[in-house]
Amino acid sequence: MKKIVFLFYEGMTSLDAIGPHTVLAQLPDVEVKHVARKAGFIQTDAMQLTLMAEYSIEDILGADILVIPGGRNATTLEKYPEVLEWIRAIHQTTTWTTSVCTGSLILGAAGLLQGLPATSHWAVMDRLKKWGAIPTSHRVVESGKIITAAGVSAGIDMGLTLAAKMAGEAVAKRIQLGIEYDPQPPFDCGSLEKADPEMVKVLREAMEKSFEK
Amino acid sequence: MKKIVFLFYEGMTSLDAIGPHTVLAQLPDVEVKHVARKAGFIQTDAMQLTLMAEYSIEDILGADILVIPGGRNATTLEKYPEVLEWIRAIHQTTTWTTSVCTGSLILGAAGLLQGLPATSHWAVMDRLKKWGAIPTSHRVVESGKIITAAGVSAGIDMGLTLAAKMAGEAVAKRIQLGIEYDPQPPFDCGSLEKADPEMVKVLREAMEKSFEK
Repeated sequence: MKKIVFLFYEGMTSLDAIGPHTVLAQLPDVEVKHVARKAGFIQTDAMQLTLMAEYSIEDILGADILVIPGGRNATTLEKYPEVLEWIRAIHQTTTWTTSVCTGSLILGAAGLLQGLPATSHWAVMDRLKKWGAIPTSHRVVESGKIITAAGVSAGIDMGLTLAAKMAGEAVAKRIQLGIEYDPQPPFDCGSLEKADPEMVKVLREAMEKSFEK
Repeated sequence: MKKIVFLFYEGMTSLDAIGPHTVLAQLPDVEVKHVARKAGFIQTDAMQLTLMAEYSIEDILGADILVIPGGRNATTLEKYPEVLEWIRAIHQTTTWTTSVCTGSLILGAAGLLQGLPATSHWAVMDRLKKWGAIPTSHRVVESGKIITAAGVSAGIDMGLTLAAKMAGEAVAKRIQLGIEYDPQPPFDCGSLEKADPEMVKVLREAMEKSFEK
């Protein structure tokens, strides 16, 4: 039985976690746990949307897969050195240590990305350098056993990529069909390269402001 | 202030709700509420993943947008006629009544799809006929003020489509860029047409079994 552990925290973006969760929880022979600094309700970054972490970090001593979602200012977790220490300790036990969106900044703050290619939300990509990572603008970036995904929705792609590694392509494809993942975005503007530059500027400034709080 | 209401229930698929939630909660001048038959913890269909409904149906008397997610056997909600009655009553107040995945079967059971084109998860599409709906294999189907989306991940596409209707294309595009929705599925097998027929058969049988329980 493989143990998949999701780190939850106040202000996290729910889709960052729920995307890969929906994929990975369908793998055969896995158990999925949700952990936070303190077990209990977790208020996400979206109005009143509340998730439950059934474990505190001291309850979880290891994981086969660790998934760290992002949040508007994920690095507020730096205020809790015990969480970063827990991430480092769990990383010692994992087969795969993963992040979605600004979750990679948490991996960086925990000291796990030194010298490694990694991705993040496009608007904060350069912040990866602060922790010695090499910003890499791909949807999913693999560096040894660390897999980072780009912003929010990229966690679904990361989850399927990881599912194929863990259980083979046939299983991953079955899960993709099961969640009818044949995306048809109504607009073609979902990446830095495809979006209107003015819109990029506005969003980047908004994201940066959230880091000043 | 527009009121967006998500119906939560035991056994629901979290991504069905969290996809459109992530989009719609970013619209300007909206409030988002989560309602269940009885307020409290809602156990989703994935291991121990728990959401919170802060309202019971009797607390919510109207909505500008109603979103009904799917679940493996969403029609178990038929056991609770008061929920179906609530859906009908809320529908009288909405600008848009929407569903994701098998959530359309709930709309059907509530009697709202009679004679209307609608979509659902590919594996249960024919079940729409039971309630007089016209099964329509598109990712997002609009029938008057009712919008239905295909399986699970299609809720993101529906959310963005709806965001554009509510707040204009520029706002919808900014949200799409914000969630970096430039999907790159690792496989090209996410729809009935693209998938291996044997895999389709296996999954369809599994889905059908869940309706026998």
